[in-house]
Order: sequence, then C-alpha cells, then structure tokens
Amino acid sequence: MKTRMEHDLIGDKEIPNEVYYGVQTARAQENFHITGVLLSQFPTFIESLAKVKKATALANYNLGTLEENKKNAICSACDEIIAGSLHDQFVVDMIQGGAGTSINMNANEVIANRALEILGHEKGEYQYLHPNNDVNKSQSTNDSYPTAFRIALFEKIYELIDSMNILRKAFSNKADEFKDVVKMGRTQLQDAVPMTLGQEFHSFATMIEEDIQRLVDAQQLVREMNLGATAIGTGINSHPAYAHEVELRLQEVTGRPFVTAKDLVEATQDTGAYVQISGVLKRVATKISKICNDLRLLSSGPRTGFNEINLPAMQPGSSIMPGKVNPVIPEVVNQVAFQVIGTDVTITMASEGGQLQLNVFEPVIAYNLFNSINMMKNAFETLAEKCVVGITANEERCKDLVLHSIGLVTALNPYIGYENSTNVAKEALDSGRSVYDIVLEKKLLTKEELDDIIKPENMIKPRERK
Amino acid sequence: MKTRMEHDLIGDKEIPNEVYYGVQTARAQENFHITGVLLSQFPTFIESLAKVKKATALANYNLGTLEENKKNAICSACDEIIAGSLHDQFVVDMIQGGAGTSINMNANEVIANRALEILGHEKGEYQYLHPNNDVNKSQSTNDSYPTAFRIALFEKIYELIDSMNILRKAFSNKADEFKDVVKMGRTQLQDAVPMTLGQEFHSFATMIEEDIQRLVDAQQLVREMNLGATAIGTGINSHPAYAHEVELRLQEVTGRPFVTAKDLVEATQDTGAYVQISGVLKRVATKISKICNDLRLLSSGPRTGFNEINLPAMQPGSSIMPGKVNPVIPEVVNQVAFQVIGTDVTITMASEGGQLQLNVFEPVIAYNLFNSINMMKNAFETLAEKCVVGITANEERCKDLVLHSIGLVTALNPYIGYENSTNVAKEALDSGRSVYDIVLEKKLLTKEELDDIIKPENMIKPRERK
Amino acid sequence: MKTRMEHDLIGDKEIPNEVYYGVQTARAQENFHITGVLLSQFPTFIESLAKVKKATALANYNLGTLEENKKNAICSACDEIIAGSLHDQFVVDMIQGGAGTSINMNANEVIANRALEILGHEKGEYQYLHPNNDVNKSQSTNDSYPTAFRIALFEKIYELIDSMNILRKAFSNKADEFKDVVKMGRTQLQDAVPMTLGQEFHSFATMIEEDIQRLVDAQQLVREMNLGATAIGTGINSHPAYAHEVELRLQEVTGRPFVTAKDLVEATQDTGAYVQISGVLKRVATKISKICNDLRLLSSGPRTGFNEINLPAMQPGSSIMPGKVNPVIPEVVNQVAFQVIGTDVTITMASEGGQLQLNVFEPVIAYNLFNSINMMKNAFETLAEKCVVGITANEERCKDLVLHSIGLVTALNPYIGYENSTNVAKEALDSGRSVYDIVLEKKLLTKEELDDIIKPENMIKPRERK
Amino acid sequence: MKTRMEHDLIGDKEIPNEVYYGVQTARAQENFHITGVLLSQFPTFIESLAKVKKATALANYNLGTLEENKKNAICSACDEIIAGSLHDQFVVDMIQGGAGTSINMNANEVIANRALEILGHEKGEYQYLHPNNDVNKSQSTNDSYPTAFRIALFEKIYELIDSMNILRKAFSNKADEFKDVVKMGRTQLQDAVPMTLGQEFHSFATMIEEDIQRLVDAQQLVREMNLGATAIGTGINSHPAYAHEVELRLQEVTGRPFVTAKDLVEATQDTGAYVQISGVLKRVATKISKICNDLRLLSSGPRTGFNEINLPAMQPGSSIMPGKVNPVIPEVVNQVAFQVIGTDVTITMASEGGQLQLNVFEPVIAYNLFNSINMMKNAFETLAEKCVVGITANEERCKDLVLHSIGLVTALNPYIGYENSTNVAKEALDSGRSVYDIVLEKKLLTKEELDDIIKPENMIKPRERK
Repeated sequence: MKTRMEHDLIGDKEIPNEVYYGVQTARAQENFHITGVLLSQFPTFIESLAKVKKATALANYNLGTLEENKKNAICSACDEIIAGSLHDQFVVDMIQGGAGTSINMNANEVIANRALEILGHEKGEYQYLHPNNDVNKSQSTNDSYPTAFRIALFEKIYELIDSMNILRKAFSNKADEFKDVVKMGRTQLQDAVPMTLGQEFHSFATMIEEDIQRLVDAQQLVREMNLGATAIGTGINSHPAYAHEVELRLQEVTGRPFVTAKDLVEATQDTGAYVQISGVLKRVATKISKICNDLRLLSSGPRTGFNEINLPAMQPGSSIMPGKVNPVIPEVVNQVAFQVIGTDVTITMASEGGQLQLNVFEPVIAYNLFNSINMMKNAFETLAEKCVVGITANEERCKDLVLHSIGLVTALNPYIGYENSTNVAKEALDSGRSVYDIVLEKKLLTKEELDDIIKPENMIKPRERK
Repeated sequence: MKTRMEHDLIGDKEIPNEVYYGVQTARAQENFHITGVLLSQFPTFIESLAKVKKATALANYNLGTLEENKKNAICSACDEIIAGSLHDQFVVDMIQGGAGTSINMNANEVIANRALEILGHEKGEYQYLHPNNDVNKSQSTNDSYPTAFRIALFEKIYELIDSMNILRKAFSNKADEFKDVVKMGRTQLQDAVPMTLGQEFHSFATMIEEDIQRLVDAQQLVREMNLGATAIGTGINSHPAYAHEVELRLQEVTGRPFVTAKDLVEATQDTGAYVQISGVLKRVATKISKICNDLRLLSSGPRTGFNEINLPAMQPGSSIMPGKVNPVIPEVVNQVAFQVIGTDVTITMASEGGQLQLNVFEPVIAYNLFNSINMMKNAFETLAEKCVVGITANEERCKDLVLHSIGLVTALNPYIGYENSTNVAKEALDSGRSVYDIVLEKKLLTKEELDDIIKPENMIKPRERK
Repeated sequence: MKTRMEHDLIGDKEIPNEVYYGVQTARAQENFHITGVLLSQFPTFIESLAKVKKATALANYNLGTLEENKKNAICSACDEIIAGSLHDQFVVDMIQGGAGTSINMNANEVIANRALEILGHEKGEYQYLHPNNDVNKSQSTNDSYPTAFRIALFEKIYELIDSMNILRKAFSNKADEFKDVVKMGRTQLQDAVPMTLGQEFHSFATMIEEDIQRLVDAQQLVREMNLGATAIGTGINSHPAYAHEVELRLQEVTGRPFVTAKDLVEATQDTGAYVQISGVLKRVATKISKICNDLRLLSSGPRTGFNEINLPAMQPGSSIMPGKVNPVIPEVVNQVAFQVIGTDVTITMASEGGQLQLNVFEPVIAYNLFNSINMMKNAFETLAEKCVVGITANEERCKDLVLHSIGLVTALNPYIGYENSTNVAKEALDSGRSVYDIVLEKKLLTKEELDDIIKPENMIKPRERK
Repeated sequence: MKTRMEHDLIGDKEIPNEVYYGVQTARAQENFHITGVLLSQFPTFIESLAKVKKATALANYNLGTLEENKKNAICSACDEIIAGSLHDQFVVDMIQGGAGTSINMNANEVIANRALEILGHEKGEYQYLHPNNDVNKSQSTNDSYPTAFRIALFEKIYELIDSMNILRKAFSNKADEFKDVVKMGRTQLQDAVPMTLGQEFHSFATMIEEDIQRLVDAQQLVREMNLGATAIGTGINSHPAYAHEVELRLQEVTGRPFVTAKDLVEATQDTGAYVQISGVLKRVATKISKICNDLRLLSSGPRTGFNEINLPAMQPGSSIMPGKVNPVIPEVVNQVAFQVIGTDVTITMASEGGQLQLNVFEPVIAYNLFNSINMMKNAFETLAEKCVVGITANEERCKDLVLHSIGLVTALNPYIGYENSTNVAKEALDSGRSVYDIVLEKKLLTKEELDDIIKPENMIKPRERK
C-alpha cells in the first residue's frame, strides 16, 4: 500500500495514499473506537458540512482572502460531496471528544485533498491548498461544525414531518371510514359514554397534526447559525464583513433561510435549540406511544379483550401459541418512543455540561438527534403502511358494548338529576340488569323520552334539552 | 363538633358543619395521604378553578339552563374565592387518583356550600343548589379541571418570565460594567483566545432573553382549552351553543385569550402542551445550570482557581475551614435545575401513560409544573438579587492571564499560517517562554507587526488583515 | 422581641433570643427561599444529626479533646432532640447551596445553645461552648452531614420495607383466596393460555418480595460512612485515633452497624450509594406501577372491559357520569411511581455534577430520597389497605372467557403439531366457532383425548404427554 | 436465485434457497426497518440463543420427547453457531415488536435448517425437523428469549468488569506514582486543605473498585432464568420434569450457575433485573463521568486553568487555534456516560410498560443494555490506555498553589480557634498577604509552632495535637 507522510502538532504519520482524509482524521480514527457508528452513515450531515465549506469559500473569495483557483477547486470538491461522492471518506466515530474538531477536520482534509486533485496536485501537497489555512479559512470547528449540524437538522426535520403527514393521513382516512361506528368511550379504563370510532381515530389524526405544527415551530430555531463566530464568537481571524457575507452565501448554497445569530459569543456556547428540539421530539414520541397503547388496547383479544378493532396480521405471534397474532407494529413504535424519550435525558445532560465558551458535547447531541429522527421516521411510515391502513372495525361488537353499558345513564342527568342517575347506575351494576329497564320500572321517564335520550346518535354530540 | 350528613354513591358520611367542602372531598382526604402537600398551597390554581365555575355559570344562565338566583350565588362565591377567601377549604392532596375529580368536586362543593349560604340556606342543603347539578352543570372534571389547570399555568408562566427578566437585566447590567475587562476565553477548559468579561456576561443575558421568548411561545399552547367537551369531548349533556358561549365567558372572567380546541375529543385526552411546556422549562433549567456552572468556575479560587470574578459572600462556607466562602447561590440554582430536569421525566411518563379518552395522570403533571415554576421563580430571583448584582471582576488577574497565555498565537494564523503558529505554540508550551519572544526570535514578524496583532482590543472582534 | 447579637465571617446579626439556632442558620434562612419545605419536616434526619453530634462528642471526650461538662451538656441536648424536642428549630430549606453546611450549622447551633442552657448559660454565650469549636469538633460538614444522611436513610429504608411487607402479604392472601379461579392469561394484550387468578396475584407478591430483598441489599451500602474524614477525607484536625473511636461510638448511639469507609478521600466525594439506592427505588416504583397497570386492566369495565376483578369502590368516579367508579388507588400509586422515576434523574445529575473533593449537591439528593421513600411508603400502605384487601374476583366471567378462547389450541401442539394447531386456530378465528368443535370435526383427536387435554386444571401446569 | 417456498399463519412466502433463516424471519425483516442495527452485530447474544437451544434439546432428549438423531443434529448446529458460524443469518432488527418472537424464530429457523443439512435433508424440509415442533420444543419465546438474553448479559458483564479492572489499575498505578505530590484539595471549587495527588488518584481507583463490586452483585441477578415457563410461566406443553432437567443442561452447556426462578409466572413477566442492572450501569457511568470532569478540571490551562496535571496529547485540538490540545479522551467518556444515563430512562419505561403475563418490550431493553456495555467497555479501555497511563503531574505548580493558599488556616483551628482563624483568613484574603505572615504578626503562634503545624506532610492526615 502506497502511503504519504503527513504531519501535525503530535508529529508525523503515514497515511494510505488512496484515502482522501489526512493525519487529523487518522488520529481521530485511532482515538475513538466507541460506537462503531461512523459519520459516513449520516449522509445529510456530510452534505451539510460540504455546504458550509462551499459557502465559506465563496465568502472568503468575495472578500479577497481566498484565491480564485482555490475557491473553484474547493467548491467543485464540495459539489461532488453534496452529490453523494466520497461519503466513505468520513470515517470518524459519531461519538468523539473534541467538540467536533475531528469531524470538521475530516471534512477539511477530504475537501482539501479532492481539491488538490482537481488542481492537478497530489493528495497531501498542502502547500498548494491547505485544510486549515484554506478550506477552514475564517472558520473554527466551533462555528462550522454547529452550522453544518443545524443545516442537516433542518433537512431531517422536513423528512420527519413528511413521515408524520403520511401517518396523519392514514388516521384521517380511517376516521372517515369509521365515522358511523358507534362505540363506548372509556375514561380511566372504565365505561364512560358513547362516541364514534371515527371520532377516536380523528383524535389521533389531530394529535399528529398538532405535533407537526410544533415541529415546524421548532425547526425555525435551527435557522439561527453562528458562522463568523470563529473560535469563541468574537470573530477572531475573520474579516469584519465576513459574517454577513457568509450568511448570504450560505442562504444561496442551501436554499434555506439561515440567519446569523445576533450574539455570536452566546450562539457559540448555546445548545438551547437542540434541547428544545429534543423536547419536541420527546413530545411527539410521547403522543405516538399513547396512540399505540390505545391501538393495542382497542385490538386486545380477540376473545378476552376489547376487540373493537383488528390490526392487520403481519407475522405469526408466537413460537408456541398457534394462531396467535400480536400487535407487533404498534409494539415496535412504542419502543422507538421509549428510545427517543431516554435520549432526551442524554441530550439534556450533554447540554447542561457545556462549560464556558463552548459546548464540547455536541457530538453526542448530533448523534442522538439524527438517530432519533431516523428511527421515528422509519417507525411512523411503518405504522402507517403496515398497520393503520389495514385496520378494520368490529362494528357489531362495538354496538353491542354500547347497548349493554351503564354509561348510558349519564345522558339522563339533565332529565332526572345526578343523584337519581347514580341510584339507577348502582342498581344496574349490582343486579346485572339494564339501565333501560330500571329507568322504566322506576317510572323516572316515559319509554318515549328514554328512547329518544339514549339513542346513540343523540349521545355523541351536544344536544339541546327537549 | 356539629356535623351534617352527606351522601354519595358510596353511602352516608358525617361532615363537620363548619367546613365548606362536602362528602366527596372528605372521601378524597381519607383516600389520599400521599405527599401531604394540599391544593390550598397553590392559590393560583384555586382561583382558576373558581374562574372556570364562574364562566360556566354565566354560560349556563345565558343559555337558559341555570336559574338567575343560582347563577348569582355561584358567581358571588367564585368572586370571594378569586379574592382569596376559603382557600383553606381546598384540602385534597396534590397527587390523587381519579384524574382530578376530587379537586373538581372540592371546588364544586365549596362553591355550592358558600352559594347556599349566600342564598340564605344551610350548608349541605343541596336541594336548593347542588354541587353536581348546578355548579358542575354542563361540565365534567375532564373539561373543567384541565381548563383551570391551563388558566393557572398561563398566569404562572407570567410570574416566571418576570423573574427571568429580573435576572436578565442583572446580567445585562454587569455586561455593561465589565465591557472593558479583557480576559481569556476558554473552550474545553483550555485556553482559547481573548474576549471581554462583558461579552461573557452579555451572553448570559442573551441566553435568558432567548429562553423568555421560548416561554412566551410555549405559553400560547395553554391558551387552548376544552370547556364544552364534558366527559370525553363529545359534549354530552351540554347545549349545542354552550361551547362557544363558555369560551366568551371565560375570556371575560379571566381577561385572557383562551380559545376552545377544534377537536374536543382530542383535546380531552391530550397532554402534549404540558409535555412541551415541561420541555421548555427543562431547557431553561439546563441553560441556567450551565450559567451557574460557569459562575462557579470563574469564581473558583481564591488562590488555586480561575479567580476572574468574585461572588458576594452570603454566609460562612464551612464549619471547619475558616474564611472559606462558597458559591452557595449558584449551587442552589443548580439543584433547582436538576429538580426541574428530573421532573420532566415524571411529566413525560404521566403523559405517555394516559389511555383512551382521558389522561388520568394530570394531577401529578399539575403538581410538578407548579412546583417547578415556583422553585425556578424563587431561584432566579435569588440568583439575581443575592449573587449577580454583587459580582465584581478581578481585572488585573484577567489581564495577567491573557498576557501569559499561548492562545495569542491564534491571531498570528492569518499572517504566518497554521503550521508556523503551531510550532510557536509548541515551543512556548514546552519551554515555558512567551509566544511573543519566540515569534520575534524566529523573525516571523517584526515587533511592530506583532504588537499590533496581539493587542487585546484587536483580538476581541473581527479585523481586516493589514 | 428580645434579641442577641451574633457574629460570623460576614459580620454581626441580631438573632431573636428565643430561638435556638444562631447566626449561620439565620443567614441560610434568608439566602434560601426555594422549596418552602424545611428540615423540620424530616424528623428522622434531625434525629440522625443529633446522633452524629452525640457520637462525636463521646469520641472527642474519650480522646481527651473535649471537656466532660461540655460532653455531658452536648449529649443531653442531643438526647432531647432524639426524643423529639426542638425539631421546630431546624429551619433551613431542604434545597440549599453549600453542600449541607447550613444544615450542619443549624444542628451545631441548636445543640450548642441548648447545651449552654443546660450548663446554666444564656443562649449565644459561645465562649462557654461553641458551635464550631465544640459541637463540630473533629468534624466538617463534609463528614458529619453525609453520615447523618446515611443514618436517616438506613432507618427510612426499614420503614419502606415494612410498608412493602404489608402489601406483599395482602397480595399473598389474595393469591390464596383466588387459587382456584381459572382465567385466561394474556401476552401482548392478546389471549394466551389459561392460568389461575391465584397465580397472577402470587406473581405480584413475588415481585414485591424480590424488591424487598433488593432494598435489603441496597441498605447495606449506606452502612459505610465517613466520620473522621473532616474536610476532604484526609482527617485534618482530627486525632489519629478518632476515626476508629467515633465509629464505635456511632454504633453505640445508633444501635446500627455503621462502619468507616476504607478510603476516606473517596468516601467524602462519593455519592454512588445514593445513586444506587435511587436506582433500586426506581426499580421498585417501576414494578409497582406495572402491578397497578395490571390491576386497572383486570378491573376494566364493568361492561366494556376485561372485568375479571373488582376493586373496592372508594369514591364516586365522576362529576358527570353517575355510578362510575374508578380505580383511584392504583392510579395514585402510578403517579407516585412516575415521581420516583423522574427523581432518579435528578439524583443522578446531582451526583454526576459533584466536583473534586466533595459533592456539593447532596442536599437535593437527600430531599428527593426522603420524599420518594415517604411517598412510596404512603402509597404502598394505601394500596394494600384501600385496594388490595378488598379485591373480589368475577369467577364466572373468568371461566367464561377461558371457554371461548382460542388459546386452548396451544395445548394441542404436542398432540397434533404446531401447523395443524395453527390451522384450527385460524379457522376458529375466521368463523367465530370454537376450537373444540373444529378439532372434532377435523378428527384430529377423539372427544376423550380432547376433553382431557383442554381441561383447565390440566393447562395451568406442566404435564406429561399421555 | 433459487428459492424455496415456506408457509406460516400469514400464508406462503418464497425464501432464497441459500439462506438458513425461514419464513418468519423473512417477515420480521420486512416488518422492522427501524434502527438498521441487526442481531448479527451482537455475537454474544447469538451464541447464547444457541446455548439455550442446545440445552433444551438435551433436556427434551433426556425426557424422551425428542428423538436422538434430531437432538444430535440440533446440538451440532448449535455448536457451530457457538463457534462463530452462521452469525450473518441473524438478520432481525434489534428493535422489533413481538417480544422477541422474531429473534427466537430466527434462531429456531437457522438451527433447524442447518440441522436438516446435517441430517442430509434440504433446507425447508421441516417434515424431518421442525423449527417450532423440534427446535423450540418445550419452549416459548417467552422463556427461551429472556434466558438467552440473560446468558449474554452475564458474559457481557464479565467483559465490562475486565475493562474496569484495566482502568482501576491504571489509576492505582498513578496513585503510587503521585503519592508525594502535595497539592490543594478543593471543595465547591474553592480552596480547601492540602492533600496529595496520590490520594486523589487513589480515590478514583477506589470508586471504580466499588463499582466493580456493585456489578458483581448485579450480575448475580441475571443468573435466575425462566426456562420451563413456556408461554406464561405455567409450563404448558412441557414435561413435569423438564424445568429441572433443562436447568441442569443449561448449567452444563454454559458452564455458568444459572438457576430456575421459583415463581415462573412472575419470572416471565418480570424485568426487574434489567432495570437494576441498568441502574448499576448508570451508577458506574455517573461516577466515571465525575472522574472525567475532574481530570478535565485538573488539567485545565495550560496557562489560565488549574494546570496541576497534563493529559497526554492525542490529537490537535483546534482547526483554528494552533498548539491547542484538548482533553478529548475524557470528553468522549463523558458522552458515553450521558448516553448510558439516558438509556436508563428508556429501559425503565420499557419495563414499566409491560402488561400482564409478559413484557413485550424486552427487545429495546436488550438493545440498550448491550449497547451500553459495549460503549462503556470501549470507553474505559480508551480512557485507561490513551489517557490515564500517560498523565503527568506538574509538581512545582501543585506545591506553589499550596504555599499561597488560604486553606492553610484550617490547620490552625485546634490551636487558635475557629473565630481567630476566620479573622486571619479574612485579612489574608482582603490584603493579598499570606496566612503565615499574619499569624506571626498577630502573635497567635510562635514561628516554631506555626512551621510545624502547616508543614504539608502534617496536613494530609490526622494528627495528635501537640
């Protein structure tokens, strides 16, 4: 294997000639064997790094601090990466020390070496184009890394929202399909009052719709980035016009409305947006877990549970119990929710632990936010496509449960009062008889009145007292 | 002690005649000995319950379902409670089973009995005005309790924001005071590049400012309430015009822009807004904890730490070490932050565990949100008044650390390149000599150039390369 | 109001003459308005502080560093506190800065002033007996406070175990009562195979029994204490024989087998035992929450749920739905579990945040461990006494569900194979017919064979194939 | 590609002929695209599944319920897997629904098909040897999966302990090396009293030693397994002698002291051991994070921090700041700790959410426990080898800080009293003068007395007052 010799603060190091990364990436590879999950598995993040490097090269060129040929070569290299090339050269473990320096240097080195080739040089001939002096010009890890992170996050949130819309639509369609299926509502797992299965599924669609809106709000928070901050927010080693120039170039390169933070010292140490987004992901996870809990309850049985709905059978449910079919899709979504919720604690601690001018723990935050979004996206699409669209209602069973329920008595309240109603309910429960018979027997209402009041369609919405 | 006999589903029960609550509250008192912290300790919540009961009485009266004399008596009783009376009659433990029914019935019973007195009856003569049939008319716990919760939360967030503004202002004033104190910035606890202490304190003010904005956003989420939902969101036992009427009356009674949720079935089971607010409180806690960590680091010493600032001495720091003064105020704020962060897990689990048409665990959510806000408010005011306003800077020490630091070398990058700068830094570190001397010795720059570049005032902001 | 003047590092301060605490406690009172929950609400902790002070006085006296009259007076004052006196003088907010110094000084001051009275002096005449020089002799907050914390924790764990034994016994009695009630087991909320309700309740008893054992194990961890460490574990200002002497005296005073940590530097900064105990409390909470979830599921209905058991009716369940009875006791226990689980995150962060030679965040750890144990104790006794003992079984319903279930087919596996059984199950499910009829129709088994295999009593335990 | 047709409850499905897994695994592959992390990445878990299947085959054979040739073929197939073969055939996503059924069936199918080949049949000819009837005989997922999980966990804990011993030893060696380096101890980041750097590093070694002991304790909890439980713990479809027989065979196959749970119904639904182990992992993570925080503090600088120790330079620290070296190894360990701590919440929620006779969420528990252990192991070895072994002390700096500190005054307490000492400290602090000079000037002690008292070697341990 041919190698080239590279050099850094620590000393010399042989680098295989065919790789595009350099000495600093190679050191990070050696230092961090932690998760085994490499940057190369997060293409959106890699592309975002390239977008940052392209925008900064353009800004430096426009301000006269980067030569045209270097600018062109850097931009071409970045364009290749944005188009999907060289992703396998991003080899740093996603959890590393150093506040992202290894990831930033991985990008600087790969881009520098590819740009050198474009300029007709050999990899490693940094005298012609340098990872730090040129690709990283006017930057620090401390502004370029978080900006790339935010660009990627912005895109990933769109992906997540897309998957949520698929799921919302699936529930909404079922709400229409089930709009005439009358069933008992339950509070505290106890029989309450009638509703339709359509109302129930509509509430699931509404929940997801609200959660999408919260994600849209949260997405705005990552639009604020800190390019121009350089090392600690003071902008050391950058041109006075640079921060604004790079803001414009970043908007151009990404096509997204990223803006420069007003207080760059604050922005460079601040991880509030990540904590908040994680909190919103947690909210989404919490709600979807609740929905899955409900789907599992409503489909419990088939003979000894609620059995109001049927989930599509996806696989045999048991290695010992023949014919058993389990709600495996909601179950896997519940687990994704637990994962996301736990992750929020990780992100919170990483944020809380940042000290002084920088939060050194951004890598673990990035790793978890990307993982959470990927898992949620997979889970939501799986839930929509492999479960919700195939749900069927046991309409007769639902109706039957309504007719035999004691909850009907609630509708009598406005006519016979809470205390009389209580006595009827108590007697029905103790005797096993129906509310209907007892009310008539006690002559609390006439048959006509009673039939009108407890007609299911009259009980599922507000109604003026006759 | 004189008693009256009251009756409910469970049976008869003697109630001391002087108390305003009735049989259902008394049962809850017996059932729930959990925290020992009673509803009476949360006056804003009690007042909010009274506001809900007043608004619903007005709506019921306007729709012709409540007699005028009852409406007047209920409203008078509510007004007394809103003015601070009878709070000691709210005796339910803040963590209870039953999804808030005990708290709602506590309000219904106290208001009914006080209204009965106003009407010239005895407490307990519910035939004239009934806790369920009249005070709770057109309501269920499941809409009146969460609405009261949200009204209280809305007000408490204002209180929290007020305390944050006090703290923000304190930091902002210090930022002005320290604007000319040059010091070393630190990343990863290692010497980085110069900045001013003013910039550092300004970043604290900015953080809090952003957090206030996030709270303002989150506060909007609790404006949506579900009065009109009654038991499960279908509006059973309410007048078709009631939901809209009570929305108007609630706006009138509270003076706040509360609006009715579009999907009342969803709104009745949904706790997403609480999870999100808790997530935002967690964010705020995380950031303030980070600030306190920094204050403790910057004031570490006096002789063996950073010693850049002095916190005011509030109390002797040790029972054994004379003269020791500890950063007790930031320390207590850190602990409040940990409490709030842990609480977020509690609220998340309570939210996730809600089943079907109702979340039965709202009481533990309410308990924790109110506690968190109260503690944070206390902590922020304490931090502002007993710590931040009294902070002083050790200006000479700060300057001294800058002059001896190696971080100055960063400013040379644009002039002598990253690799030369690295060599200078390495030599300075190994030899204990100054960056200044080494650069001159190596003739990398002239004395004039060097003096200009590393002037602290030139290093704390972007600068065009000469 | 008469006052006395006291003095400390900060300066002079007037102290009301009737109070037993002194200047440092008064400063802490002013500095820390956080939770409003004072040390006085935790009597076991106060008594433990007095036990530490008594043991150290005895040790100091035995080593000749404390005069006999002072020793006697201090011990008498401590005995009074151990007997329940003066608890109202412990006025520090439970969450404070300063690593417990305020609590330690509160104890030192109250004991000193009471001892002064015993010696015939006035409160505040510290020239005769001094809070620091005498009561705190050979100690620092950093060893006396955690030791008192551990003593209190040791006792509280006994209380918790007592409550768990009550609950375990309640479940165990029900297991006996229900030993012949055959019912369907469920996995993943789907019908599985038969079992007895007795087996189900026995599993609850077993869970609690195991959890008790884990608490017994964890309790051992707090036996290790660090008296003799003084400020940072090096034992500065203590007699070389002191650590061993005070270990013996502490065993004598407490009657408990407390032992001195081998590495006092480590022990003084270490909070591992608290984290582990919190982890075990979390485990217990998790399990009890699972049990309560099951109780709520099994009692769901009465008409539209599982309805296998009835929980005793404790209070009316709804302000709008007459006759509704909710599982309020399990519900409140679930909420306590969520509280304890969230608290574990608080304790973990407080532990992680400790720096260098001391963990300054022990107060928030103590506050939460004591609160968690108190709430759990209350919750467990409530669950036992107000719920479990009154549970009844719906034996007919249980039997009925077994007979109509498809899960019976599992028992046929060893006789007709998994694939034949699957086909029978599928046909039963699709057609709504019984497994029994289909097996006979298909002539897979004779009636005699079949009757024998699916007899419920044959399905609830291992069985040799005939 | 040649295929074979397989069949299950859902219907027919073509399976590529070369794969060893069958129809149920293939369905799981389709159903669960969640994490992208497959069972094949967890070799210890795969081997444990094979051990369970071998032990059960042996037990079934011994009890006469499995033919000898089948037993031999199954055992051979299992031995191959235990030796490392066929791991790529374990293709199920680690987070799946179905309580592990897919993983159990993946094992059943791979073993069956390999055993069929050994018997001279084609893959898929299940009439000769069946995944359910033979490989899964006397088992359910609900006992075989958790047992395999526990076997794997038992082994992984040994691996983790090994890595902790490496780390403990590294700290212990440094403690010896630094035993004479006197330095200031710090509490609450404020100067306290002297100690040695050796004492400090010894405390790190002690912490890890204690944590190892806690892991050894916790490891015992997973020895209890539930083979013989079959579907829900009642042992349906197993021979009465089977549970005991398989216990013996499992001990034989694993060489580990696994024992059968006393209450198999309880054991089948119980996840307490996982929660507790997770709690102990969290404890370990919390402590190691604290140690890393300390290493970062102690090495802060080089010029503007504590600078008492130097961590080995592993890579350049900054893309902009030349010469900067960051504590990247402790930083990555901190992040692993946060990951493990967050994971504990996930595991807790998964445990709490288990319902009735089974916890369906074990897959997410397994995934996280294995991930946490793997990451911790990597992190601990990295910390030992790439950081701790190379740490050096700045002895002169440490000594210098002691001599200039005010904490020396603590040692004077026993001689001049707490109040005099306080005054000296206050004056030293205000004036910037040394404690030494002030004491002499005030004639509080003679020079001889003072020199003796504040000799560092006299201050780092207990000492009898002269």
